Amino acid sequence: MSAPAEANLPLDHVAIAVTSLEEVCSLYELISGETRTTPEVLEAQGVRVAFVGSIEFLEPLNPETSVGRFISARGPSLHHVAYRTADIISEISRLKKNGFEVIDPEPRPGAKGHLVTFLHPSTAGGVLIELVQHPS
Amino acid sequence: MSAPAEANLPLDHVAIAVTSLEEVCSLYELISGETRTTPEVLEAQGVRVAFVGSIEFLEPLNPETSVGRFISARGPSLHHVAYRTADIISEISRLKKNGFEVIDPEPRPGAKGHLVTFLHPSTAGGVLIELVQHPS
Repeated sequence: MSAPAEANLPLDHVAIAVTSLEEVCSLYELISGETRTTPEVLEAQGVRVAFVGSIEFLEPLNPETSVGRFISARGPSLHHVAYRTADIISEISRLKKNGFEVIDPEPRPGAKGHLVTFLHPSTAGGVLIELVQHPS
Repeated sequence: MSAPAEANLPLDHVAIAVTSLEEVCSLYELISGETRTTPEVLEAQGVRVAFVGSIEFLEPLNPETSVGRFISARGPSLHHVAYRTADIISEISRLKKNGFEVIDPEPRPGAKGHLVTFLHPSTAGGVLIELVQHPS
């Protein structure tokens, strides 16, 4: 494995799985002084989502969703870390070549009109890693 | 609880508890293109620490430390989120008044010469929150 000189992905956000989006957003508004974004429903991912500054809050639409099962297993807690890229297709190719397991080889729509994919925790030190490309 | 207009804490870093600092830093260097900092031992916290960009990696000095017990219970995974403040003493006072449980009412030394304290997960939506003041 080798890091090409051009790899340069800044941290985009951190996500927390919660049971009550409104209640937890209020706590983090109070801590950070930031204001929440308007909540979005992402049916395909089974979540309702809002951001307070650089933290994304994920409320499962029902207990059988991925985030619902995560909360059943671990309680409300940190869910994933997201890096920002300007070219998600190239990054997917680069990371696959370097041995990372990419969960969605074709990026899919995320919150805020982002394109997203995930690296499996088994190849990323136990942590679910998201790559996000912001709308241009 | 009310948010004073002056509250404005940006995200400083995210921390991941790991069993092998060197191995996981290499993975995240490869993902992000950033280079790790020189590892530091923080005896009082029972960890060896390095940063790769905005992610801090915590390796327990032994299984009986707080991070060692965290890994025994949950496996290597996301450990805490840190907000940056220019005045940690004022923030501790403000957050206590607003109902947050502050674990260290007197801030203590963290990595990189920071002053740090933590908010208990029970009052922060299930997540351990750190406040850090960088050296001036």
